[in-house]
Amino acid sequence: MTALMTPPVALLFDTYGTLVDWRSSVLDDLARFGDATGRQQDWARFLADWKACYRGGMDAVNRGERPWTTVDALYRERLVELLAAIGLGNMRRGDVDHLTRAWWRLRPWPDVVAGLGRLRRRYLISPLSNASFAGMVHLAKFAGLPWDCVLTAENARCYKPRPEVYRTALALLGLPADEVMMVAAHNYDLAAAQALGLRTAFIPRPLEHGPGQTTDLAPEGKWDVIVNDVQELAAALGC
Amino acid sequence: MTALMTPPVALLFDTYGTLVDWRSSVLDDLARFGDATGRQQDWARFLADWKACYRGGMDAVNRGERPWTTVDALYRERLVELLAAIGLGNMRRGDVDHLTRAWWRLRPWPDVVAGLGRLRRRYLISPLSNASFAGMVHLAKFAGLPWDCVLTAENARCYKPRPEVYRTALALLGLPADEVMMVAAHNYDLAAAQALGLRTAFIPRPLEHGPGQTTDLAPEGKWDVIVNDVQELAAALGC
Repeated sequence: MTALMTPPVALLFDTYGTLVDWRSSVLDDLARFGDATGRQQDWARFLADWKACYRGGMDAVNRGERPWTTVDALYRERLVELLAAIGLGNMRRGDVDHLTRAWWRLRPWPDVVAGLGRLRRRYLISPLSNASFAGMVHLAKFAGLPWDCVLTAENARCYKPRPEVYRTALALLGLPADEVMMVAAHNYDLAAAQALGLRTAFIPRPLEHGPGQTTDLAPEGKWDVIVNDVQELAAALGC
Repeated sequence: MTALMTPPVALLFDTYGTLVDWRSSVLDDLARFGDATGRQQDWARFLADWKACYRGGMDAVNRGERPWTTVDALYRERLVELLAAIGLGNMRRGDVDHLTRAWWRLRPWPDVVAGLGRLRRRYLISPLSNASFAGMVHLAKFAGLPWDCVLTAENARCYKPRPEVYRTALALLGLPADEVMMVAAHNYDLAAAQALGLRTAFIPRPLEHGPGQTTDLAPEGKWDVIVNDVQELAAALGC
């Protein structure tokens, strides 16, 4: 934090990758699913194929090519295709739902719960995720994320980095942009927030995409705070 | 709870009156304000005049006679008039803001924090209040209400009992009406929720409006659960 910066009132957190280790968590769910169904499969490859629908589906919503669709629905749609491709096209609806909701059962990185707890004593803290609202509420409960409230792309019915997502969050919190800090492991998210006047904090998560990650290893903009984890963020913000 | 009822997944709580004692809390704030400004005043009368703007302002929004306006803005507008009427028309903007935000500093009834804590272990719990979103977030922090998320009329940009308010909450939670229970001290709120298929729980708060309260002393509909406080609600719902 630069010496001249007055502290923000609220902190908004990207969640997938920034706070939770979606990759190892979903891989564990898929491995359990494989054991239960007797499937041998390259689950890392399966997950890469599954995750690949995410940005494209969101971009289609943002371009107006499809109506508002939650990431839960995007993931479910793609999962049905991937299951069919490995001969599991006849799974029960409830079982497909359960597997889709692997994205609601994600482990936080080790610094997250304690770091958020420190920050919450002084700041108003909320996710601002591209997750569905319900998905973010269930994830918070699963992972023990101590939010003051939950805000997601669904509140704006479009996806980051569309400015409406950040603006809707500011409007609901009743705060001007410069009293709010966006915290993310992804440079594109911080760039969009900064363009609207929000403060920014970058937390690299070099293992988000597993070994060999090539993106978001370093800050690519003039972010206000650059720290290694949420505990360091709490220290940097005086908690 | 009737024996045949399957348990809900989520509970939505009216807040002003149902969970927090707005009257005694705001009266305390007004008395402190009187001491600080050297005003002798019938603050109970002042509060009654202030509170009286609430339903009328919300109804005007619901009828489309005024654009979306938060209750914070409605209260501030009326407060400025009432202050002018007692010769305090020149108060600083920040001081008027602070006094308006007395509605963010409300004490919970004694059963509330512990009762919600019990319910949270088994259910997803959220307010569904006519408060502003920001007001409800700040109130939760002030009063220690352990929500899983925050939902208010502002998410629908109209006020209870308009069906859009309940429907928006259901949509964001991703739940069908019969998996959600509305909890309130006000019969009108439960009637609107029940008409949409939500479950209902009535908690009378005979002191909400102070001594001599004449409304909502008893259930006026076939509510699913009728209990005396949130601790009893937790017990009735198996927590």
